[in-house]
Amino acid sequence: MPAAPLPTTPESLLPLVLQAYARTPDARLRELLTGLTTHLHRFVIEARITEAEFERAVAFLVGIGQATGATKNEVILASDLLGVSTLVALLNNPAGAGGDSHAALLGPFWRARSPLCQPGDSIARAGTPGLPLEVRGTVFDAQGRPLAGATVDVWQASPVGLYENQDPAQPDMNLRGRYTSDAQGRYFLRSVKPAGYPVPTDGPCGELLRAQCRQPYRPAHLHFMVSHPRHKLLVTQVFADDSETLHSDPVFGVTAALVGHFEPVERDGAPLALLTHDFHLLAGAPVFPQPPIP
Amino acid sequence: MPAAPLPTTPESLLPLVLQAYARTPDARLRELLTGLTTHLHRFVIEARITEAEFERAVAFLVGIGQATGATKNEVILASDLLGVSTLVALLNNPAGAGGDSHAALLGPFWRARSPLCQPGDSIARAGTPGLPLEVRGTVFDAQGRPLAGATVDVWQASPVGLYENQDPAQPDMNLRGRYTSDAQGRYFLRSVKPAGYPVPTDGPCGELLRAQCRQPYRPAHLHFMVSHPRHKLLVTQVFADDSETLHSDPVFGVTAALVGHFEPVERDGAPLALLTHDFHLLAGAPVFPQPPIP
Repeated sequence: MPAAPLPTTPESLLPLVLQAYARTPDARLRELLTGLTTHLHRFVIEARITEAEFERAVAFLVGIGQATGATKNEVILASDLLGVSTLVALLNNPAGAGGDSHAALLGPFWRARSPLCQPGDSIARAGTPGLPLEVRGTVFDAQGRPLAGATVDVWQASPVGLYENQDPAQPDMNLRGRYTSDAQGRYFLRSVKPAGYPVPTDGPCGELLRAQCRQPYRPAHLHFMVSHPRHKLLVTQVFADDSETLHSDPVFGVTAALVGHFEPVERDGAPLALLTHDFHLLAGAPVFPQPPIP
Repeated sequence: MPAAPLPTTPESLLPLVLQAYARTPDARLRELLTGLTTHLHRFVIEARITEAEFERAVAFLVGIGQATGATKNEVILASDLLGVSTLVALLNNPAGAGGDSHAALLGPFWRARSPLCQPGDSIARAGTPGLPLEVRGTVFDAQGRPLAGATVDVWQASPVGLYENQDPAQPDMNLRGRYTSDAQGRYFLRSVKPAGYPVPTDGPCGELLRAQCRQPYRPAHLHFMVSHPRHKLLVTQVFADDSETLHSDPVFGVTAALVGHFEPVERDGAPLALLTHDFHLLAGAPVFPQPPIP
């Protein structure tokens, strides 16, 4: 290999870097690193990043890596706050293509192997207080046929905005459960209405939000992961249409298709919320993510 | 503030994210986050990043943050390997503008408060074996006048390629020292010729280099930080012109202006290397970096 020339100006550096990448055997890795490096160099040159700003960026990256642990992933949170996580979700789950449901972020609170439930069971265990909620719907395949035997994995925050793993007052696996669609594709779960909650603000990402005067509260929502052995995995969320922060979600997770109508009704003189929500799966095979919480 | 619309496509997300940034009080922070986010979104869309690739990137970022500690900064190393650190150095230290010396990376091995030395002292303490090296030169101001009282802080790896803090066999602060330029602006230091050494390859960055079939050895070099109360700080390196990896430096730190001629000579029948290297400072005030090693 002939000796590479040595750089003399900021603009002359990128070609040399890309030349050093040229022998990467994995073509996709080479493509990704080439694209990423090209954009990074352009950004640094356009913004004329100073040495002090570079040091601050390094400190931020070290900080989000070191703030990541068993209970939160601050790197994913940083990506969320820049809209990148939602962008990846939108890109890989084209809105309504082929009649499938809209996808949403997995978020940092999914746990694998939550309790298996029967239709009508409540995931609000041990009498979790809150407004009762009933959620019904049907799982369909791409041809619009009801899909039996699909798993509807649901998880949510409590009516005070805490997931069970953040809240010593809640029993293990509270507000988490897996339902199986019946012969008509139907599922039926009971719970309590979730509240919005702030993203973690005790790390570098909280500092970023404060520096941007952005509020940290996510709108109230339910998480769903719907799976079936012969269909693509669907990870989605349903946001309560009466949430105050529906239009200022710090992680940009709310799309129009993900808003659900939480209908306030009365039954036997007591208030209750009703939600009807169907899921549409695409043919394929499910690929499960790594649980963000072990 | 009117409710922001909700995103529907990957392309429709960026304007909403930038709108959320709009109230950032610090104009420069707003500019930087806007530029960074714009490039990140463009990259994700152009490369059509998959969810699995996104998860891999998150794991890499967590890994480099968590691999950073008292003895290495893997985030800076990652930036080095993408050419970004050298780019920032080139951008902020225009090559030879105003007759100043070319800057280079600080690197991860600088320590503050190294021993103060007299002209001709050797920084190879306690008889460090190796080819003797003598370095002489003059510190000049922007008008080409010799600058007295400048501090020439030098640090280097040993002839086997290890900095003292990586090598239990070396005394504390070995191969580190600070010299003061005399009334004629001259400095004179003795040492042993450094060897090239690999960047740390035991973390995520080593995995990246291996995936790219890139060799990890930096060419042999001396580090310098030259300071004077009424001049800009100069951080630079001088690379040995006989280094095998001069044209394949993994961190892209070698520019043409940074190559020094290490002249092999004989004195009293014993081999010796001579280097002559001048420094040209710009008027200003020194701003010292945070030591990467506490």
